[in-house]
Amino acid sequence: MQTVDHVRLSADEKKLVILDQTQLPNRTEYAELTTAEEMYDAIKKLRVRGAPCIGIFAGFAMFVLAQGFKQSTYDAFAKEFHEKSAYLNASRPTAVNLSWALKRMERVVTEHVGCTPAELLPLLRNEAQAILDEDIAMCKAISEHGLSLLKEGDCVLTHCNAGPIATSKYGTAIGPLILGAERGVKLKAFSDETRPLLQGARLTSWELDKAGVDVTLICDNMASMVMKNGWVQFCFVGCDRVAANGDTANKIGTSGVAILAKHYGIPFYVLGPTSTIDMNCPTGDDIKIELREPDEIKEMWYREPMAPKSVKCFNPAFDVTDHSLISGIITEKGICRAPYEQSLKALFH
Amino acid sequence: MQTVDHVRLSADEKKLVILDQTQLPNRTEYAELTTAEEMYDAIKKLRVRGAPCIGIFAGFAMFVLAQGFKQSTYDAFAKEFHEKSAYLNASRPTAVNLSWALKRMERVVTEHVGCTPAELLPLLRNEAQAILDEDIAMCKAISEHGLSLLKEGDCVLTHCNAGPIATSKYGTAIGPLILGAERGVKLKAFSDETRPLLQGARLTSWELDKAGVDVTLICDNMASMVMKNGWVQFCFVGCDRVAANGDTANKIGTSGVAILAKHYGIPFYVLGPTSTIDMNCPTGDDIKIELREPDEIKEMWYREPMAPKSVKCFNPAFDVTDHSLISGIITEKGICRAPYEQSLKALFH
Repeated sequence: MQTVDHVRLSADEKKLVILDQTQLPNRTEYAELTTAEEMYDAIKKLRVRGAPCIGIFAGFAMFVLAQGFKQSTYDAFAKEFHEKSAYLNASRPTAVNLSWALKRMERVVTEHVGCTPAELLPLLRNEAQAILDEDIAMCKAISEHGLSLLKEGDCVLTHCNAGPIATSKYGTAIGPLILGAERGVKLKAFSDETRPLLQGARLTSWELDKAGVDVTLICDNMASMVMKNGWVQFCFVGCDRVAANGDTANKIGTSGVAILAKHYGIPFYVLGPTSTIDMNCPTGDDIKIELREPDEIKEMWYREPMAPKSVKCFNPAFDVTDHSLISGIITEKGICRAPYEQSLKALFH
Repeated sequence: MQTVDHVRLSADEKKLVILDQTQLPNRTEYAELTTAEEMYDAIKKLRVRGAPCIGIFAGFAMFVLAQGFKQSTYDAFAKEFHEKSAYLNASRPTAVNLSWALKRMERVVTEHVGCTPAELLPLLRNEAQAILDEDIAMCKAISEHGLSLLKEGDCVLTHCNAGPIATSKYGTAIGPLILGAERGVKLKAFSDETRPLLQGARLTSWELDKAGVDVTLICDNMASMVMKNGWVQFCFVGCDRVAANGDTANKIGTSGVAILAKHYGIPFYVLGPTSTIDMNCPTGDDIKIELREPDEIKEMWYREPMAPKSVKCFNPAFDVTDHSLISGIITEKGICRAPYEQSLKALFH
């Protein structure tokens, strides 16, 4: 049975154990979660983050919670299961993987009407494991497809974190770099620090450095200059939700990177599993963008506040990159090209 | 005699007093400088900053230093004057105003061969005052020209800080907003926080808020989204050096803002005094870009490091915005339009 260190069940399988990503890179700390409130909070506060990883988390979370249900009848069990699932689903609105994984877990319950909780629990355990297993396979496949675009010496600019801890293994956006390093292919990377939560500085540069990739950290606003200098051959980013027309929601700032890449003639690729593609969402305009607290911009991380208390902030967690700026969308099934309405649709047939 | 609070002589005129900009917005602290080393350090550490303000600083700094010279002959005085001037000039390489102001002060000495130090000192005092007086007049004129582009309700996005404390009064890039506020014109602003040194968060949002302008602070990577939302009518930025062809060096990230503005069809203006235009510098390729320490990205401001020690950083202080991305360059003499080779040249005839 495959496991990953950063999101897993405890030995007795009664708890969900996560690597607390808010403590990186200074401390490798694990948190043990047992209540729905703790799990909601872990997602909300980004202790666990990355769209695919949140999906894996949600699967195991529902299995852990279900073990604690007091109900002995199917109906009461199913009711509580749906309630807890809806509660977790409200923790973050933009990433599709959370609701996708919760729906998969719910389907196990709804497809086994009349089963006892004791019968349902092993099925839920299997489904959570399947979500993890499939993600590992997907990340590997995505990394292979991405790596096929690169040649020795190429440099990839990435934004935010779509690495191993944002997924299961390898990651999506930086999966090709990590897979390449495993195979001795010399590749380079620029990691945007990714304000305000600094996932690029804290997580991506840490993961790439650990994997032996030659990584250079920059502030988000330095991407234009490194591109202009001819130092970047590709931009690879992850995704939180891809609309049916290819418009892609990802970490705030991604659309800016795509516009710069277009200006400088650098190919810009989105990498993510097909579970991130939401065919029910026609365009980027239909993607709800999470707005977060001003404190993340003005105070968080700092020794003292960095802006006056009275100043307003606008703090969107994601933005939408128009499909016209995207050179390709790389899923586990291969590389989709424009027109995306057709190439994405073909993935599901 | 005009004075400004943030860069001025002490009452006895023996010291140079500056508002320590590294302490804003949390503390309003003044530093008194008497040695060349303290002055070099104040520029280097950005306790005093903003291209025009550094010019004003340099004028008064040379007057303060000259008072301390022990030499009684012209030749010895002139030698020490040139040495100290060359020393201060090395503190920051990109902004032209520093060397421009130092050259003006040196010219006072070289044009008065044979004068005694006692005769030279009042002339140096006058020249330093003239640099300040001219900057106040220039900023006012630039602000008027910039304001002429705006109408009630318009929103201006700005990057870094080109406000009152980066100049003498009003500022350049945000001068039109501050002048507008004085006159009761309702204008809005987005202030990019401007990593890594956060001049937008700490200084621009503080200055605009104080002036009564409706300002919203964003991270640099959010500029694309606010432009896409149609919330920005103009981009106004300052400049540290403008080449003869219009290529403009300004705070790192400025070129990215210009590319986004072009993508979204938003006019992008550079605002600065003619002293920032370097007709001896043919293009942006000839502008030396200052590289700064990784610590500014990885550790500075933070409670604890935000990236692994082993990770490399690239930390340029400025970038060059290609003239093709600039809608106009606004100086105290009016608005220059492309072709800049001609319109900039005409300023000096």
